[in-house]
Amino acid sequence: MEYQEVKVYAPATVANLAVGYDILGLALESPGDEVIVRQGTRSGLHITRITGDEGKLPLAVEKNTAGYAALQLLRHLGKTDMPIEMEIHKKMAMGTGLGSSAASAVAGVYGVNAYLGHPLSKSEILRFAVEGEQIADGAFHADNVAPSLFGGIVLIRSNDTLETTQLPVPAQLAVAMVYPHIQILTSESRAILSESVPLDQVIAQTGNIATVISGLYEGDMKKIGTALCDVIIEPQRAHLIPQFSQLKEIAINNAALGFSISGAGPSLFALCDGLESAEQVRSALASHLDSQTIAADTFVSTINTQGAYQIY
Amino acid sequence: MEYQEVKVYAPATVANLAVGYDILGLALESPGDEVIVRQGTRSGLHITRITGDEGKLPLAVEKNTAGYAALQLLRHLGKTDMPIEMEIHKKMAMGTGLGSSAASAVAGVYGVNAYLGHPLSKSEILRFAVEGEQIADGAFHADNVAPSLFGGIVLIRSNDTLETTQLPVPAQLAVAMVYPHIQILTSESRAILSESVPLDQVIAQTGNIATVISGLYEGDMKKIGTALCDVIIEPQRAHLIPQFSQLKEIAINNAALGFSISGAGPSLFALCDGLESAEQVRSALASHLDSQTIAADTFVSTINTQGAYQIY
Repeated sequence: MEYQEVKVYAPATVANLAVGYDILGLALESPGDEVIVRQGTRSGLHITRITGDEGKLPLAVEKNTAGYAALQLLRHLGKTDMPIEMEIHKKMAMGTGLGSSAASAVAGVYGVNAYLGHPLSKSEILRFAVEGEQIADGAFHADNVAPSLFGGIVLIRSNDTLETTQLPVPAQLAVAMVYPHIQILTSESRAILSESVPLDQVIAQTGNIATVISGLYEGDMKKIGTALCDVIIEPQRAHLIPQFSQLKEIAINNAALGFSISGAGPSLFALCDGLESAEQVRSALASHLDSQTIAADTFVSTINTQGAYQIY
Repeated sequence: MEYQEVKVYAPATVANLAVGYDILGLALESPGDEVIVRQGTRSGLHITRITGDEGKLPLAVEKNTAGYAALQLLRHLGKTDMPIEMEIHKKMAMGTGLGSSAASAVAGVYGVNAYLGHPLSKSEILRFAVEGEQIADGAFHADNVAPSLFGGIVLIRSNDTLETTQLPVPAQLAVAMVYPHIQILTSESRAILSESVPLDQVIAQTGNIATVISGLYEGDMKKIGTALCDVIIEPQRAHLIPQFSQLKEIAINNAALGFSISGAGPSLFALCDGLESAEQVRSALASHLDSQTIAADTFVSTINTQGAYQIY
């Protein structure tokens, strides 16, 4: 049996979404990583080329998030001896809080699954992608991987069982993103978090996440805007990001529904009611960053409801 | 202007619903308190009669939950001098975890509002009912009051701002209730709770409440059943209730979607997929309680989606 070469895309993601630490994430239209899979000349899976990583990512399959995720799929299918070549084209910087390693892991396993003619469903390969990301991140959690794979806004009830729900995405929902050029290690960003949370904050956060979920089902932007507020994690991490409180105030004053840290940072996101609103928020944030001489990339995006897909 | 005598009903409620400590509650069809309001012979609001309370409740308006709630409405309307008589007929025991004081507060304010020809909406009198319940409970929270007033399953985003959402109620949802004849003071049941919660429990609970909300919108009983699990509060309170873990196991083994403590206890509830299922759960729980010679009342109820209403 002959297999065609395939090229797949897996989008960047915003994890946590203010109210859902470790359990919520959404997919952006772009950027996204690309993976090409074709027949190889040697037995087994080999990564032959990586671009866009400034030489930082390992070619060794077992140490590479895309490679490891794909390898877990091949192990599951009993096809580890198949001669397969993989090229990874990174289209986003790493360590920015946009789920770069998750996108690679998803592209890797989705690419090989596509190369094999999609023997498994997206739900069935989710676990392999999470295992792939774990190589880079250390933690087993799906709040970047699941939205990158499935698209839309994904709720993960449990990172152990990987039960996920694709939540409704109001069509007008858009995002303004800011990536300040500072470095925050995910491991460090996790380490500073207190291991315990005051009960009153738990009550506030559960009220907020429940209301955001309700707002998504009802397409009620005002309700989402009232509740999209992180009282637990954001206050502990805000100091890692220069001008955080000023940027948040600017976003909210420009009608953002909410503004918080994307994943473990340093990227920031503003959820907005419409792409035009997102552009206004982006512009205001960019002006302020410029006035403070803080180097940053800014962009807007709608929500990618497709997730990973096959380009050819 | 002449006002007719009115009689109103406000139902018992189950607060917390396992995953929503202080922010979720549902209304039962019965039991429920009744309040009669008619023109009085003296200036101001007076409680002339209370039945079903074993003489425990104060006739003084300022000290009575129903009276105080109604008084707050009259103050708001500038009608504190109106001659009004109120009768309160308690139809449920107090301190059982069924929101007895909340039902009285709701009946009191709803009764006087009805007597006056409904000058305010239910949403507008919510705050007065919460203030009324606070007289009995000490805490300002709406997780019993809001469902008793509005009916259905109510989410309170914030007990400060009293923003509420009536969640969708799948028609087949039913409840098996157990009231073991033991006494737990709400204040004590609150006092034993740790003031801080481990972060991993916060992640689990937010995943669960978000999934329950999603399940209610989707009418997905299986999803609700997977997520209706309290990892924070219930483990701290379970020891207050004899045979709790055995009863929970029996409920789950009999296909209950979830089983936990109603409010601050001692009542227990099992959420079930259909009244027939609820009756099976109730019967199994009653048998076990009987075998352990634990005195208890048990009953089943569908969800009251109407909330407080005017009988005449």
